[in-house]
Amino acid sequence: MTNFNDAISKLNELDFKNMYNGDFFLTWDKTDDEIKAVWQVADALRALREQNISTKVFDSGLGISLFRDNSTRTRFSFASACNLLGLEVQDLDEGKSQIAHGETVRETANMISFMADVIGIRDDMYIGKGHTYQKEVVNAVTQGNKDGVLEQKPTLVNLQCDIDHPTQCMADALHVIHEFGGIENLKGKKIAMTWAYSPSYGKPLSVPQGVIGLFSRLGMEVSLAYPEGYEVMPEVVEVAKKNSAATGGKLTISNDMKEAFKDADIVYPKSWAPFKAMEKRTILYGNGDTDGIKALEKELLAQNAKHKDWACTEEMMKLTKNGKALYMHCLPADITGVSCKEGEVDGSVFDRYRDPLYKEASYKPYVIAAMIFLAKFKDPVATLNALQKEGKKRVHE
Amino acid sequence: MTNFNDAISKLNELDFKNMYNGDFFLTWDKTDDEIKAVWQVADALRALREQNISTKVFDSGLGISLFRDNSTRTRFSFASACNLLGLEVQDLDEGKSQIAHGETVRETANMISFMADVIGIRDDMYIGKGHTYQKEVVNAVTQGNKDGVLEQKPTLVNLQCDIDHPTQCMADALHVIHEFGGIENLKGKKIAMTWAYSPSYGKPLSVPQGVIGLFSRLGMEVSLAYPEGYEVMPEVVEVAKKNSAATGGKLTISNDMKEAFKDADIVYPKSWAPFKAMEKRTILYGNGDTDGIKALEKELLAQNAKHKDWACTEEMMKLTKNGKALYMHCLPADITGVSCKEGEVDGSVFDRYRDPLYKEASYKPYVIAAMIFLAKFKDPVATLNALQKEGKKRVHE
Amino acid sequence: MTNFNDAISKLNELDFKNMYNGDFFLTWDKTDDEIKAVWQVADALRALREQNISTKVFDSGLGISLFRDNSTRTRFSFASACNLLGLEVQDLDEGKSQIAHGETVRETANMISFMADVIGIRDDMYIGKGHTYQKEVVNAVTQGNKDGVLEQKPTLVNLQCDIDHPTQCMADALHVIHEFGGIENLKGKKIAMTWAYSPSYGKPLSVPQGVIGLFSRLGMEVSLAYPEGYEVMPEVVEVAKKNSAATGGKLTISNDMKEAFKDADIVYPKSWAPFKAMEKRTILYGNGDTDGIKALEKELLAQNAKHKDWACTEEMMKLTKNGKALYMHCLPADITGVSCKEGEVDGSVFDRYRDPLYKEASYKPYVIAAMIFLAKFKDPVATLNALQKEGKKRVHE
Repeated sequence: MTNFNDAISKLNELDFKNMYNGDFFLTWDKTDDEIKAVWQVADALRALREQNISTKVFDSGLGISLFRDNSTRTRFSFASACNLLGLEVQDLDEGKSQIAHGETVRETANMISFMADVIGIRDDMYIGKGHTYQKEVVNAVTQGNKDGVLEQKPTLVNLQCDIDHPTQCMADALHVIHEFGGIENLKGKKIAMTWAYSPSYGKPLSVPQGVIGLFSRLGMEVSLAYPEGYEVMPEVVEVAKKNSAATGGKLTISNDMKEAFKDADIVYPKSWAPFKAMEKRTILYGNGDTDGIKALEKELLAQNAKHKDWACTEEMMKLTKNGKALYMHCLPADITGVSCKEGEVDGSVFDRYRDPLYKEASYKPYVIAAMIFLAKFKDPVATLNALQKEGKKRVHE
Repeated sequence: MTNFNDAISKLNELDFKNMYNGDFFLTWDKTDDEIKAVWQVADALRALREQNISTKVFDSGLGISLFRDNSTRTRFSFASACNLLGLEVQDLDEGKSQIAHGETVRETANMISFMADVIGIRDDMYIGKGHTYQKEVVNAVTQGNKDGVLEQKPTLVNLQCDIDHPTQCMADALHVIHEFGGIENLKGKKIAMTWAYSPSYGKPLSVPQGVIGLFSRLGMEVSLAYPEGYEVMPEVVEVAKKNSAATGGKLTISNDMKEAFKDADIVYPKSWAPFKAMEKRTILYGNGDTDGIKALEKELLAQNAKHKDWACTEEMMKLTKNGKALYMHCLPADITGVSCKEGEVDGSVFDRYRDPLYKEASYKPYVIAAMIFLAKFKDPVATLNALQKEGKKRVHE
Repeated sequence: MTNFNDAISKLNELDFKNMYNGDFFLTWDKTDDEIKAVWQVADALRALREQNISTKVFDSGLGISLFRDNSTRTRFSFASACNLLGLEVQDLDEGKSQIAHGETVRETANMISFMADVIGIRDDMYIGKGHTYQKEVVNAVTQGNKDGVLEQKPTLVNLQCDIDHPTQCMADALHVIHEFGGIENLKGKKIAMTWAYSPSYGKPLSVPQGVIGLFSRLGMEVSLAYPEGYEVMPEVVEVAKKNSAATGGKLTISNDMKEAFKDADIVYPKSWAPFKAMEKRTILYGNGDTDGIKALEKELLAQNAKHKDWACTEEMMKLTKNGKALYMHCLPADITGVSCKEGEVDGSVFDRYRDPLYKEASYKPYVIAAMIFLAKFKDPVATLNALQKEGKKRVHE
């Protein structure tokens, strides 16, 4: 059972007043206190739900979702978070809408927001586009609210962009905090964020980038490893470096998976596309160069295939701290012998960590709900306490 | 008006405590008392709604739906049932999700269920698959709940599988109970569940199977008739035989539609595909044999066309008890001269029974809601009484 | 801030008792008092929401939407209106349903309505079809309710048909009322409803028809102008003529955009397809004549291209009253140099009116909610007053 009072008392020590009316783009936009506030509110909401207490703070209102890529987990996590708070999800399906017809972002953003309290966007396909688009949407609705068009400014939650995947990484970190018995126990621990082979092409970079950008501020040793050519965005590496320096942690980057796994407390092996290839692809798409895209895809698959030894095997796991590092993944993983012939992780390794992996995922709805909660309530602690005191049942008794 | 007190007093005589935390796969998994409890709770919920009393027992929570076949009625019935109880429907659209990418059932089932109180699945296309899939989903979420991944175990409602269509058949039966003035009046009555010609191909067997599996336990004479070659699953025939024996009813199987209609109190003429052809098709689909599938389709349509005399005509209706048997159908029917040239039923017959047919369908949302209710509440009678006492209005007055 | 008491006191002077249990097809079906009641209830609902007071009059219930054309604005407006009142939107997606299979309107209408309080339909593509279809749906559910199949008769809201677009035009008018400081200030004002060039083909006539049908009853000078061949439905012109005569207004029809713009207080320049071409297209679609449709499309685009001078340029705006007429559009507009090379309106004109345009759109959810409210509550004033008195917060405080 999650401890409500513990979460509240920790919240009372944090300064997060600037989150009110804000948005959640990137974890490194936020102060340490703000990041911690998200985790504590997530825990508080979970504690209330575990006690069958309703956390429906909205009597009506919409949560708009826009997914520019297929999604199961994030879609259901967003829907769950909205439902938990009382918002009805309305999906902006670009196939069913008129957006394609040359409509500006500014107009659409206002048109869907008359009764929207939240907008969640996943737009991770093109380098330099997703984050920019999300900024445009927020600027549009902020202006709309100022001009009296919108009665409220909907809060944006980044459900994955080209730079960061904050709802995933914040859930990952909350999982780690609980597994290690508290944030204070993470100091000096080693996490290996490594590339891993997958037979598929063009997976986003937002997870490895988000992980190094966030875990580097916990005083941990963050060991990023990938085959030559699989660099991530240099700006994010800079962020991680600065974070590490500030918190007494360490950031190492290598082309050696074994080095990264050695004595690691946590491993996060996962496929991604090279940053430069993704940039190239973005340009090819912009030019409508389908032959170029096909050629690039072929080239990237061939390049991937050279690194089939980058896999989280039983052998590799033995290198980790006592052979028992916590294995993490954002799911779905490419599991050798299960979902593909050769993939990111051995079937036996994956199977051993199934429970923790599912628990890792279970934090995402609460993390999203917490991001919304902190943006919508001026005094979140007071509101949480009020909910507990009111004690309205989620399920009738 | 449905009588609330009557439903409650009947419920008080039934033993259904084992339904708590359970699922609804097949009607013959349930005891007679459990089956009756579904009908009584359905009536009680309807009675409350007729009195404009809210039955929203969930303050928040999701009802996940997964339709692997097009659906209007069942989709809206499930959505209505969830809404009636306070659950928000979230559709798992396999087109929009990442499920196709080699993901295991176990993982997806957990990933969508963090805040799911109910999962409704329609998966009726392939023999030997639908029921098995539903079992896998339930095993996955049961395990997930045990392992602490899920805070609650969502309840599965079978919205149609390869074996049974319990929400349809339970609604059918509740309709019959009300038409005949009570379950006790059904003893000795005759129902003809017969094949009927349709110009379309491959309709599921779940309705005829569900009907003989359920109506055979009401002490009725169940007369199953179909042209040679249109056998249903032998296991279900066994179930119906045992049921009939146990309740003093009778099960007859023939290749003679007239014999079945003769003196019938109720007729349920409906097209379905031969069980063996469906098995063959399942294998062809498994092998990706599109030529084989096309050939089979052609063959089945030709086979159907030999039996155009299997139709619910005015002539046939004259054979029934006083020429006035209750005509039933799960809808949509293939109506001769309306939706097709030659079909399952004469336009004039269908038209005469339009009202009862629509009423038959109207029970489905309540039957689904009752299945959920009985699985979610430890003392359903107490909860129903509490709802009535609280008397919260569904629509503001 | 919208004034609640003002709206209530105006409502008290109006007679709208016949709206109870009714539907909203066309504005000219309604009396002047009924039209005014919609605006006042819309304002009252907005005032309550601005004060963070919940207007959730439904504790559960469905709002069914059926869109036979792509839509963003109207889809979100309907969803917002339903959510504001407590109804959950359930979309009848004809792609996912079995409707195509020869099912009658009557049957489908009943099957989706067991727990539906509202049905919203957009069906504007074919002349002579949309309005007729909506009438059929209403007849079906009215009969269903009478026959005891449906516990309530869902209210139809016309979300755009071949004849009228009442939710749009009522929002347009409410916008104008607020911009001009009250309905009484509109007497004698001039509105130019004119055709404008667009590089796209076959835009519905429902907006120009709806505008002349509604604004002609406000004592205004309605100046309809279009190039020869772009006539609207003659029946609607008749309606507008009668309205004008009755309210001391004036209806002029010309083929001269300048004449229409001259001294206009309001301009509404917008592309539409010629009525006769739409009739022709309906027949071609009925015959499945794809070659004919393509030929007609080419012909219409060529015809449009002859009238590129029909554009709302800065020059044209100078002709209006003090060069400052209120520019209106239902959005999205074809903006010259922004969404197309040559279009309906200059970029600079559009940009100057962006705020009022967005405000115009913001009334639509409230207008839809008001139409539902007036059909569902016997004493709407009493219910509105009760909501204010109860003062339940929309967002927790």
